[in-house]
Amino acid sequence: MGRPIDLNADVGEGFGAWRSGDDEALLDLVTSANVACGFHAGDAATMRRTCAAARERGVRIGAHVGFPDLAGFGRREMGLSAAEIADAVIYQLGALRGCAGSVGARVSYLKPHGALYHRVSEDGSAAAAVAEAVRAVDPELAVLGPPGSRLLASAAALGLSYVTEGFADRAYGEDRRLLDRRRPGSELDPRGAADQAVALATGAAVRTTSGGAIELEVRSICLHGDGQRALETARAVVSALGTADVELRPFA
Amino acid sequence: MGRPIDLNADVGEGFGAWRSGDDEALLDLVTSANVACGFHAGDAATMRRTCAAARERGVRIGAHVGFPDLAGFGRREMGLSAAEIADAVIYQLGALRGCAGSVGARVSYLKPHGALYHRVSEDGSAAAAVAEAVRAVDPELAVLGPPGSRLLASAAALGLSYVTEGFADRAYGEDRRLLDRRRPGSELDPRGAADQAVALATGAAVRTTSGGAIELEVRSICLHGDGQRALETARAVVSALGTADVELRPFA
Amino acid sequence: MGRPIDLNADVGEGFGAWRSGDDEALLDLVTSANVACGFHAGDAATMRRTCAAARERGVRIGAHVGFPDLAGFGRREMGLSAAEIADAVIYQLGALRGCAGSVGARVSYLKPHGALYHRVSEDGSAAAAVAEAVRAVDPELAVLGPPGSRLLASAAALGLSYVTEGFADRAYGEDRRLLDRRRPGSELDPRGAADQAVALATGAAVRTTSGGAIELEVRSICLHGDGQRALETARAVVSALGTADVELRPFA
Amino acid sequence: MGRPIDLNADVGEGFGAWRSGDDEALLDLVTSANVACGFHAGDAATMRRTCAAARERGVRIGAHVGFPDLAGFGRREMGLSAAEIADAVIYQLGALRGCAGSVGARVSYLKPHGALYHRVSEDGSAAAAVAEAVRAVDPELAVLGPPGSRLLASAAALGLSYVTEGFADRAYGEDRRLLDRRRPGSELDPRGAADQAVALATGAAVRTTSGGAIELEVRSICLHGDGQRALETARAVVSALGTADVELRPFA
Repeated sequence: MGRPIDLNADVGEGFGAWRSGDDEALLDLVTSANVACGFHAGDAATMRRTCAAARERGVRIGAHVGFPDLAGFGRREMGLSAAEIADAVIYQLGALRGCAGSVGARVSYLKPHGALYHRVSEDGSAAAAVAEAVRAVDPELAVLGPPGSRLLASAAALGLSYVTEGFADRAYGEDRRLLDRRRPGSELDPRGAADQAVALATGAAVRTTSGGAIELEVRSICLHGDGQRALETARAVVSALGTADVELRPFA
Repeated sequence: MGRPIDLNADVGEGFGAWRSGDDEALLDLVTSANVACGFHAGDAATMRRTCAAARERGVRIGAHVGFPDLAGFGRREMGLSAAEIADAVIYQLGALRGCAGSVGARVSYLKPHGALYHRVSEDGSAAAAVAEAVRAVDPELAVLGPPGSRLLASAAALGLSYVTEGFADRAYGEDRRLLDRRRPGSELDPRGAADQAVALATGAAVRTTSGGAIELEVRSICLHGDGQRALETARAVVSALGTADVELRPFA
Repeated sequence: MGRPIDLNADVGEGFGAWRSGDDEALLDLVTSANVACGFHAGDAATMRRTCAAARERGVRIGAHVGFPDLAGFGRREMGLSAAEIADAVIYQLGALRGCAGSVGARVSYLKPHGALYHRVSEDGSAAAAVAEAVRAVDPELAVLGPPGSRLLASAAALGLSYVTEGFADRAYGEDRRLLDRRRPGSELDPRGAADQAVALATGAAVRTTSGGAIELEVRSICLHGDGQRALETARAVVSALGTADVELRPFA
Repeated sequence: MGRPIDLNADVGEGFGAWRSGDDEALLDLVTSANVACGFHAGDAATMRRTCAAARERGVRIGAHVGFPDLAGFGRREMGLSAAEIADAVIYQLGALRGCAGSVGARVSYLKPHGALYHRVSEDGSAAAAVAEAVRAVDPELAVLGPPGSRLLASAAALGLSYVTEGFADRAYGEDRRLLDRRRPGSELDPRGAADQAVALATGAAVRTTSGGAIELEVRSICLHGDGQRALETARAVVSALGTADVELRPFA
């Protein structure tokens, strides 16, 4: 059996009367669940229900923290200062820990969402603020993010566990970054995603959009939950990983 | 020296650019701080700053949980179901625990705010929901509320610590309840509040608005922080309690 | 050809990244569109897009005003005072008028949503507040609501146009009220809804759940858009009304 | 008597239970009132009350539109697209028109607030979006902003009235821009503000922080309302303008 890989996905992204994605089906597939914490999506009821559903399946729970922008789903860079980012992370992380604890579960890691994910990939002071916020609340938490990011460097500098992730269903460029979502070819079909997942999990080369090949060392693979073919893709990935003898195992 | 009494006050009730009350001055006087948790007032930065200020002074920290109604300051009964109340309490309690923990402090008790305070005084299923929410997050937390309330009965039934409180600056009626805030004579002046505080703390009779006398057994006295004469009243109360040889001591 | 009837439906109930219902399909069927105004659902982009889609089809636009409770979808009675209700109505109505005007459309009527709909059916001062709010912004607006409600009485008293509505897909009791949504038999299947719509439109007796018959004089019929069989029901109603030679015509 | 000048100030910046500034006193001094519209500050009750107070005094009403960021008071650049900015402007403008109309007043102009003010000073597509939004709602509205801004250029290009403003109590640099608020010397004392206001109103040279002199042609002067010495400054400005024989007259 080859080396293990973690599969993570965003869940709990409904709000009030609105639903988003098929969380139960996704939780049946992944090993780690990024749970929205109420700022960009999610509410207390959804958070508790999602934590309970993850716990039942032995799926690890991560705090998917974002900017306070429900209307923009956390996808807009909001210009928060590093201090404001730390405050927002601590609040959301605490809230999710409360929700998880209330159903007998616990939070194992943190992953920034949307515009915050992009911000802390590049902005060192924001990245440091997130890492310090995590340490201030619970130094046992792992931090999940992109390889080479400021976020993971900050987490490492503070002695936190940090975990790299890649994306199965998004195309990479030669610069080892995801292609912009708005560009043609940026989203892979289920078969392409399955192939890329196997490459990521086995340390094989990942094909870039320009025909080249890059190597990405990742311990987790992110599956998307809200696209039209999301579940189909997720199932294709899990099936291909099984065929390739890759063990699915949570990192945390 | 007589029996001890706790003094509690609402703090951290600003939001964003808006301030409310003189928290530093109040925290110099009280032994327990009811910290707003972001639903009816308060935000992450204010919560962390307030917890740090309380910790510096040895003041106990309580989660002042309310309805999700920033525009109404949590003073409007919102018709949440018992389950929705439990969710809201767990989320807010978790968030404050995160904020407190991040500054080396911890949350010792919970007190409902505004319309939720009134709701759980009378509504047994809502009261049970709050008590169960507290227990689900941390069974070591005390619950602070009015004597004879459904809230404290529910807390007691679940084996939680429960603490009764009275009000120094609000007049009581013969039914042992606070007079409606809109009625004349419902608010006591600093001297009247000081006298009432001493009566509450020493187990002496409290004068009612109709000239009668009632006995109220309370372990904490609530001081208000946002009225015009709030600080003057708070200082008069503390001074009178000192003169009466009452020891100020946190209940938690 | 018989007397005309209006068909109204709730649209524009998404928020940010969340969608709700198939507005385009509903707008192809109805003559009046109740557009959410951002308090219980809807946002500026959705409001403008929905107004444009209604205008293209000659569908009248109504302000579907609700309580400021996005998390509760406006379905929780929030305890707003009559003055606060008037403020909320004026703000939402103005916002929708701005959105409609920006796409060359105009608002023709107002209908309260959810818990506010129920509140102003029974509470005279709240009903008067809504009617006065409508008059203060635009006395040409019609008010849509249930027959016999305080809302329509208040509208009439102020000289506003008022329009009664019935429900095709909800069962009525002997008291001429809708059966509680949680009771069995409260929701009619497409065929039952079609029959009831024809009865409402033609002035025939409506069958109650207890086997009796009531007469309801309504000028509009409300179709729901967010249930699972909503569109199927809507199409059955429109088809049955056509067969019964009922003309669909907006009231405003 | 010399040429006239308009004085504008931000008002209605409370929210719910929170107050900000002494609006009544400011409205006694200015000729134009920038009324917050509920996104960065303000609520429906405050908006209606403020419009009524402005109307009583013959003060013109402007829509002070901002980003949807109550927690950040609209001072954080939020990364809204130009289309999202247009939507937000139209919604807020409509809401204020509703509130104004309900008290017999009307909106005469629009001024962006905070981070949006800065955004549309520099960003041409955002500026065009605001100007088009204004025109789409009411082409009779004037647009108030800084001289040389993209905002006023866009307004001019669409045939809208546009009005330049300067600041009495903020220091200018050689580049004709305001000095950053965080730099020493960026805020003028009442006497300095009074001198600068007279210079702005009479077309005299304005002294820069580096000792130079610039000319700024403005038709309105902005007074701040929420600083500690705000009212003292406002009164000093009005007094100095009177002494200098400058007529206060609204631009709209």
